[in-house]
Amino acid sequence: VGVVTARTFGAAGIIAVGSELLTPARRDTNSLFITEQLNAIGIDVVVKLIIGDDRAELAHAIKSVLARVDVLVLCGGLGPTEDDVTREVAAGVLGRELREQTDITGAIRSRFAERGMSMPEINRRQAMVPDGAAVLPNPNGTAPGLWIETDGRVVVLLPGPPRELEPMMRAVVATRLTGRVTGQPILRRLIRVTGRSESHVEDAIRPLYAVWRDGEVPIAATILAALGQIELHLSARAHDGVTASAMLDRAVAQVCALLGEDVYSTDGRTMEEVVGGLLADRAWHIGVAESCTGGLITSRLTDVTGSSRYVDYGIISYSNSAKTELLDVSPALIAEHGAVSEPVALAMAKGVLARSPTNVGIGVTGIAGPGGGTPDKPVGTVAIAVVIGDRIRSRTARFMGERTQVKFQASQAALDMLRRMIVAL
Amino acid sequence: VGVVTARTFGAAGIIAVGSELLTPARRDTNSLFITEQLNAIGIDVVVKLIIGDDRAELAHAIKSVLARVDVLVLCGGLGPTEDDVTREVAAGVLGRELREQTDITGAIRSRFAERGMSMPEINRRQAMVPDGAAVLPNPNGTAPGLWIETDGRVVVLLPGPPRELEPMMRAVVATRLTGRVTGQPILRRLIRVTGRSESHVEDAIRPLYAVWRDGEVPIAATILAALGQIELHLSARAHDGVTASAMLDRAVAQVCALLGEDVYSTDGRTMEEVVGGLLADRAWHIGVAESCTGGLITSRLTDVTGSSRYVDYGIISYSNSAKTELLDVSPALIAEHGAVSEPVALAMAKGVLARSPTNVGIGVTGIAGPGGGTPDKPVGTVAIAVVIGDRIRSRTARFMGERTQVKFQASQAALDMLRRMIVAL
Repeated sequence: VGVVTARTFGAAGIIAVGSELLTPARRDTNSLFITEQLNAIGIDVVVKLIIGDDRAELAHAIKSVLARVDVLVLCGGLGPTEDDVTREVAAGVLGRELREQTDITGAIRSRFAERGMSMPEINRRQAMVPDGAAVLPNPNGTAPGLWIETDGRVVVLLPGPPRELEPMMRAVVATRLTGRVTGQPILRRLIRVTGRSESHVEDAIRPLYAVWRDGEVPIAATILAALGQIELHLSARAHDGVTASAMLDRAVAQVCALLGEDVYSTDGRTMEEVVGGLLADRAWHIGVAESCTGGLITSRLTDVTGSSRYVDYGIISYSNSAKTELLDVSPALIAEHGAVSEPVALAMAKGVLARSPTNVGIGVTGIAGPGGGTPDKPVGTVAIAVVIGDRIRSRTARFMGERTQVKFQASQAALDMLRRMIVAL
Repeated sequence: VGVVTARTFGAAGIIAVGSELLTPARRDTNSLFITEQLNAIGIDVVVKLIIGDDRAELAHAIKSVLARVDVLVLCGGLGPTEDDVTREVAAGVLGRELREQTDITGAIRSRFAERGMSMPEINRRQAMVPDGAAVLPNPNGTAPGLWIETDGRVVVLLPGPPRELEPMMRAVVATRLTGRVTGQPILRRLIRVTGRSESHVEDAIRPLYAVWRDGEVPIAATILAALGQIELHLSARAHDGVTASAMLDRAVAQVCALLGEDVYSTDGRTMEEVVGGLLADRAWHIGVAESCTGGLITSRLTDVTGSSRYVDYGIISYSNSAKTELLDVSPALIAEHGAVSEPVALAMAKGVLARSPTNVGIGVTGIAGPGGGTPDKPVGTVAIAVVIGDRIRSRTARFMGERTQVKFQASQAALDMLRRMIVAL
């Protein structure tokens, strides 16, 4: 089952096969998972390629990528139909005969039988195995994967559906690739930041770059601007995972010391998870009064497992009359300051608090656009108020982008304001 | 400015350049936009490739792809830093000298001056133009694009940020590519379906496949399962866009005749847009009472521009006491049927209607998971009720997947129930 050579692996390529992946509607996501798995054991992905169900193009792609990598992962195109060409093309390029392996046919037949169906004869194509290949079991589908060693390189064939591919890729990494790697595992940390622009984050942490570069284990940093936050990605590679991990932890601490409360997460948690954790720790309950965010804040809070411990209720008061009827915001206050104003946001937050024994109230009102802006209050203007007991904070922000982008940024800013108030208490 | 040959174009390749695109955290999205633009004028994308900021790998990739396509679009790597190698590598592969074009340097200098900054000297790299290349203006950034013709093929270099790339790609298609295409434009239609599985949709429309294949303009169909809906993608290619469009319209009508009200959109609109349109047409107002969806239904409704015409308010009653206090759901009813039950969902919908002169009320209560399930009501069980005046409908559904997936499917089912009630009136 494959000639095991002494060669070890450092560089990988990924080829995603499927004509649908070359249309505007579909994107390859498997390669991100595969990359994560390979990086974790020290294999770098140096090229990713997406190709249609075309024998000639695929053959060329396999040859071209295989010449430049140690490990080639092909995903997709292992189904039973004529469109599924990966198995045959890979065998052809590698000069292997395909033979039906009857135990696989039997297993596929049993899978169909379990569902009261007989196996279509075309599915026998999935039992074809190239000479010298090892079969990778697929617990979640009919198409087995294949592991083919060739001239000290490895070609791995996996089915396209993520729920079939992912456990198979994990197994390949755990059983066949680990221990044969030249590269050093890549460890990563993700630091999430609010309240600063990308360039402000960069300016602040620039003094650390030289420290990180010249450290015992060098650390690389990438800053990415995402909606409503900045992400700082740190990575280090070392055979000594303990040292690398300690160096990364030190780097995270250095960033936190420089950026202070602007760092809201260093462990991958989202804003709603962080805020939820702060509320749960204190056994507090939150009520949110939303206008322009339309329920998004409470929806984000309730995306978190266990959020029923701290989310009681929310009021979405989209119209002015709803603000008055549901939250007791006085029409005079709206007339005086306008519906999009800090006094109204504050009245909304207090209105939601008045309804039940809730500790934390949030009020958000703004102009999501594209209509409704004025010279004084352009589209994207959002007033936010947070009330915790007798502590009150409010601000007016202006967000750029489309309607859903304004909504998201407003929800992020409101949750962030609450976070900062709690940690400052 | 480029030797214009008589050659026309049918096949394209896309190379996205950037080491960050080879990490697990980032995916290439530009290629979807570029594909859409090229397809619309009849150019097929036959390969997409993602490569790091590595001169040797990029040079190999450009040579390899260029040998197989008429048009090669490179995106990314046109910035001013040493990491940005696309311009130099492309010029090298094509054997062109790079020369600074001083009018570009001047324009970049002016861009900096407008912001009160002086141009770093390193930015002069962005003014380097290969011999014989045409410069593609970049209205949103400092890096101009490049158009290089070589042996009857074209290489297009575009900057990576989408807001810079997209207008430049549109301009390339409109001014330089259109009229030089051998292929036939691809026209597409997207039909969105609820209430049927992928295989049920396939079974229903299978008789149409032969009709479409043998028609004057053949039509290709792809069925994709998405969360809470099935998508049917139809495409046709023809030089005669009028005929192709008519054939596609006929195919859409054939699908609608077979699937009836299960088709909710044939024009790209989302469920929330379709439901919003139905409400706006009737000048109706909606109020939603949400438990397990946590505000997601109202948030989706308010993602739609102009939704303030029909969204008045929403109540998120996450706890039992909130259901009673805010929606007058009797504790006895909850005790008798459980919080997740059709009677409670109905009482929530009626409770939201009772608060204001709203025409349409929705109540949703369920178990989003991962905790809270019972043998009788497992995780994913959701009760939905819709009230329109004196018309009432309720159902209990069971959704699979994680918490956020259950939430989305519940929101989709509730909006879909309302849609079906309105169109059946």
